[in-house]
Amino acid sequence: MALALTRELAALAVASRFETLPTAIQQEAARAFLNWVGCALGGAQEPAVLAAVAADAAQGGGGPATVIGHARRSDLPGAAFLNCLSSAILAFDDTHLATVTHPTGPVAATLLAYAELHPVSGADFANALALGIEIQCRLSNLLMLPPARYSLGWYITGVTGPIGAAAAVGKVMGLDEAHMTWALGLAAAQASGLRSTHGSMAGAVVPAFAARSGLSAALLAAQGFTCTPTSLEGGSGFVEMFGPGADLSQVLEGFGGYSEMRANAYKPYPCGIVVHPVIDACLDIASQLQGRQVERLSLRVPPLTMELSNRPEPRDIFEAVVSLQHWAAASLLRGRAGVAEGAPDCVHAPEVAAMRARIHAEADASLARDATLAEARLGDGTVLFARVDHARGSLSRPLTDTELDAKFVRQACGPLGETASGHLRGLCRGLADLPDVGRALAPLWSPAPARAAS
Amino acid sequence: MALALTRELAALAVASRFETLPTAIQQEAARAFLNWVGCALGGAQEPAVLAAVAADAAQGGGGPATVIGHARRSDLPGAAFLNCLSSAILAFDDTHLATVTHPTGPVAATLLAYAELHPVSGADFANALALGIEIQCRLSNLLMLPPARYSLGWYITGVTGPIGAAAAVGKVMGLDEAHMTWALGLAAAQASGLRSTHGSMAGAVVPAFAARSGLSAALLAAQGFTCTPTSLEGGSGFVEMFGPGADLSQVLEGFGGYSEMRANAYKPYPCGIVVHPVIDACLDIASQLQGRQVERLSLRVPPLTMELSNRPEPRDIFEAVVSLQHWAAASLLRGRAGVAEGAPDCVHAPEVAAMRARIHAEADASLARDATLAEARLGDGTVLFARVDHARGSLSRPLTDTELDAKFVRQACGPLGETASGHLRGLCRGLADLPDVGRALAPLWSPAPARAAS
Repeated sequence: MALALTRELAALAVASRFETLPTAIQQEAARAFLNWVGCALGGAQEPAVLAAVAADAAQGGGGPATVIGHARRSDLPGAAFLNCLSSAILAFDDTHLATVTHPTGPVAATLLAYAELHPVSGADFANALALGIEIQCRLSNLLMLPPARYSLGWYITGVTGPIGAAAAVGKVMGLDEAHMTWALGLAAAQASGLRSTHGSMAGAVVPAFAARSGLSAALLAAQGFTCTPTSLEGGSGFVEMFGPGADLSQVLEGFGGYSEMRANAYKPYPCGIVVHPVIDACLDIASQLQGRQVERLSLRVPPLTMELSNRPEPRDIFEAVVSLQHWAAASLLRGRAGVAEGAPDCVHAPEVAAMRARIHAEADASLARDATLAEARLGDGTVLFARVDHARGSLSRPLTDTELDAKFVRQACGPLGETASGHLRGLCRGLADLPDVGRALAPLWSPAPARAAS
Repeated sequence: MALALTRELAALAVASRFETLPTAIQQEAARAFLNWVGCALGGAQEPAVLAAVAADAAQGGGGPATVIGHARRSDLPGAAFLNCLSSAILAFDDTHLATVTHPTGPVAATLLAYAELHPVSGADFANALALGIEIQCRLSNLLMLPPARYSLGWYITGVTGPIGAAAAVGKVMGLDEAHMTWALGLAAAQASGLRSTHGSMAGAVVPAFAARSGLSAALLAAQGFTCTPTSLEGGSGFVEMFGPGADLSQVLEGFGGYSEMRANAYKPYPCGIVVHPVIDACLDIASQLQGRQVERLSLRVPPLTMELSNRPEPRDIFEAVVSLQHWAAASLLRGRAGVAEGAPDCVHAPEVAAMRARIHAEADASLARDATLAEARLGDGTVLFARVDHARGSLSRPLTDTELDAKFVRQACGPLGETASGHLRGLCRGLADLPDVGRALAPLWSPAPARAAS
């Protein structure tokens, strides 16, 4: 008898409660949310988001839900879509390292949209957030890890994101097991996303579509819109199409320990995760420079870093975000690797381009996935070394609360100012204590909260 | 050098004009539209659509676009979604026979939503409709026919529907080649749909998601939201993921002849297309009965009909819609095979169930896909025969204009009454002559057109 995966997951979701989450996960939910809100604020004025806000207006609708960092309000799918897009556009969102899923975006964005129209307590919000992230990441493992046969051409956040989002928002809606089963199926029916979107604005739109899809699925199911109860595990179903051969049982094994949420990492730098150890090494070198110039930089990087980010001459910010040469050069020249170092003026700066050309990178199979060795030859003949065993933000060196707070404030200060940023940071940190998440937070990030349209 | 399929299709779309369509296609566009509007009116009060309308209201939005057969209005994605759902829910919509794509739903629903907010002439609407249908069906051929390796677990209308819809609505928006290329890519990034949804309400939701996805894609692209220009043909792109090994050149070959729109068929019966020759045979037998009872019916059917619709005991309307036994029994007993014969009271009627049990069906590989042989043994010992070489509505026996008109009126009369149905039928038939499609049609099918919400 095959495992009734869809129903079992629905039952887990229905039974989940904040009080029975591991303490570490109760806290991790607030960290994930804080990181996500910061990314959404930080990305809100990117050209892709501005285009999407204009497209939202062209839909002829509108609604009560805030668009983070914008005066415009939208309906629930619009807000979920736009807020997830903002959080993803700078590649600064979180990463489930085993699968490179970015789980919080679709889940948090759908939850927040719903929580603006309906009172949802912080504890229920945090529980649903952890639930959606855990389900999403476990399904990513299911599809991507052996024995499943997965094609890397799928964009995993678009594939599992709708289901994580539907589970989360279905939970705060109070769906019972039957309705939750339909919600998961209706979400699975929208699983999509091509990796070919990378290198354009569309690389960040796939998670945003996932948010909208998950919300639709739960809203439809809540109204009695049915779906096959074996949508995940059945014939012509989700697992058969995306990860044939997968071992279903691993999804449920030890679910209550929330192992995958524990394996979710927050980025210190707004770029592809494989570039992070390179940046660490180059910032180390930069701190030793004392005004001297690097003539040539030799890097030994993990093979995956070379494969995914060997782009010596990125043509635009979307190529630069996954260019190890770009981030190495910017880190050396500027001594930091923040949003400004991924922006067009840095990507196109002649001195940055010149430095990129002086970087020689090669793969070294002996290095761990988050390690790098760097050797810089200076104009005066000095040679400087740096060695990174584990990148900052990796599971061995997770961002501390202080580092996460600082990341948040850097992103939030521009749009909100220092005082409001600090206030919002405190509220996100205390997520589980909020009596009504939407009412507490929405007024803080929308510059004109009283208006119904931008 | 690989074919730049995405750009080539975008260029074709940008160049297309009503005046250069083959005359037969100019007329076929009106036939497809008439059939679609009728199906949307006919399906609008089905429980699945009522649930989806309630879910639309729960999104907290609303807008100016009509929901066919409802007082509620929605924003453009909402109207596109709901109108496509209505048109698909009774399995009465059109079918591209080679691939079992249902092309008009996603394309017409997105076009209509846009045309309610913006003036679109009937000629432009008809051209875009034909364009979207042709692109969608050609992409379905590309993925499903040799040499492509396609998995039948995908739900083809959900896979190619977003692209057809985006091309059509992008055309009436006036997108240039670059923006159209992005629109096609953003649509491809949402290609999805599992065949496991069949047998539940969700079987009709996949085309509806496709409509919404195509509309989003075009609206985003119109605002400058970029996508990889090789989204269809490139690495980790649409063709690689859904139909690896496909021969790209066939998509463009003889495009201007609109061969695939010519191969699109309208159903005379609201059920799976493979059941249609069975119904023809049983209606023939029924016409010979003169009040006598059938003791036993023997059917010889094409193997595909047996494979897809051998369901002697359907449990609900979603199983009945693809049950050859159900439609055979209902046709014999009632002498007709319309929407009422697929409704719950017919599916669950004891005399229909008893007749289903007296039907013996077997596959006959010598029969064409749209043929059936029937032999009925009556209570008085008489044996009646029927032989169908080509089902009504197949390419060999397409529905005539008169038959299509009658189908439309049967579906429209209930919600609209006879006079308004006749008026609407005339306007749809004369689609290409309408100066402003939305303004001409919307007031006719929304019972309370002046109100902004139900």
